[in-house]
Amino acid sequence: MTYCVGLRLDAGLVLLSDTRTNAGLDNVAVFRKMHCFDVAGERAIAILAAGNLSVTQTTIARLRHAIDGGDAERTPSILLAPSMLDVAEIIGDTLSSVWRDVSDKMAPAGQAPSATMLVAGQRKGGQLRLFLVYCEGNFIEATDDTPYLQIGERKYGKPILDRVVRPETTLEDGRKLVLISMDSTMRSNLSVGMPLDLAIIERDSYRFGVRERIEPGDPDFAALSEAWSRALRDGFAALP
Amino acid sequence: MTYCVGLRLDAGLVLLSDTRTNAGLDNVAVFRKMHCFDVAGERAIAILAAGNLSVTQTTIARLRHAIDGGDAERTPSILLAPSMLDVAEIIGDTLSSVWRDVSDKMAPAGQAPSATMLVAGQRKGGQLRLFLVYCEGNFIEATDDTPYLQIGERKYGKPILDRVVRPETTLEDGRKLVLISMDSTMRSNLSVGMPLDLAIIERDSYRFGVRERIEPGDPDFAALSEAWSRALRDGFAALP
Repeated sequence: MTYCVGLRLDAGLVLLSDTRTNAGLDNVAVFRKMHCFDVAGERAIAILAAGNLSVTQTTIARLRHAIDGGDAERTPSILLAPSMLDVAEIIGDTLSSVWRDVSDKMAPAGQAPSATMLVAGQRKGGQLRLFLVYCEGNFIEATDDTPYLQIGERKYGKPILDRVVRPETTLEDGRKLVLISMDSTMRSNLSVGMPLDLAIIERDSYRFGVRERIEPGDPDFAALSEAWSRALRDGFAALP
Repeated sequence: MTYCVGLRLDAGLVLLSDTRTNAGLDNVAVFRKMHCFDVAGERAIAILAAGNLSVTQTTIARLRHAIDGGDAERTPSILLAPSMLDVAEIIGDTLSSVWRDVSDKMAPAGQAPSATMLVAGQRKGGQLRLFLVYCEGNFIEATDDTPYLQIGERKYGKPILDRVVRPETTLEDGRKLVLISMDSTMRSNLSVGMPLDLAIIERDSYRFGVRERIEPGDPDFAALSEAWSRALRDGFAALP
């Protein structure tokens, strides 16, 4: 399983993913699910992936090939696309094309793959955008009413987001929010696990201000997790 | 959908269910999902049901028919069973028999029903027991390590249980816990809804000390929900 979450705040984009993949509980591995692309000072784009790893890896590989000057007929480069909307469309088209290929291959075994991606970023002259792209190629976008999007195992970590995140939430608070949302998820679903990949794109910076891997045993993350557990227990004890 | 939760505390059993059923978002109704049976001073048993309503209603109807002196060959009375383990077995057998009947009826339409039940209670001379009964008829039981069980939409309301519930939790705290676990679930899943049914069986009382329906707009529930939201926001704001 996977948990990825993105916040589209007034101050910027905050993105967090886990790294655990599994094909059965006895086949667990670490794979990066967050992929960062930038032209410093012009655009910064992050792609977070959930679902069938063969679908998401091949999609990312095709997008990278296009950036490196590959077959521009089939896949335009997301680093040359004129807007974040075009970026989301390129990624949607690529994901759905790979998904159909893999679906055809898996159909004889009676299996059907699934995959979703979060696409977040900003291009010079454009707005901060955060999309959720489905494997069929269509997508939705975060708005001020719902300034976050999640993919994968989203339920355990959703109540705290629903109660706290607002467009005016600061980047520092956004960072804490996604980490405790992830912490709740990892406590309840073993197939979501450390290390974590965190990225922050500050508004109108067009680069990754933070790109950090949080390893198992990270003291700051452990302290945050413990403080949040204590806050929940204390808050519960103080209920009327 | 449905959310039902039961706590097996040292001091007694705390049980909560919602009442919303739906066959599609445009077909929503209120049905009781918690069914209470007692012989005051001798035993008290609660059954909480999730899943296909035709399966769970027919199961409860057969159990009631048996209590009223129906076909004792097919279904023994849960009010005469010598232990809570026997009660769980009778309910498991009845549920699985009904489930197989309904499965056969639905198979031509390519549909498969599912249902689960929580069975909680105590019989004079026995222990407090809390079981989760599957539609196949087998069951698991709450223990001191995991003193709660859930059926239905369990994910949203699980993190707070994981962090707070212990066997030594008081009945009053248990009551608050199941209510805020339900509140988190109702905020995130529209198909779980008010009114709520709450029951409490105090240890060695062999009767329902509390049997309460909490209606929409209930001021105490609204105050608890608001206080918990505030506690979460304040707890978050105070993080290091």
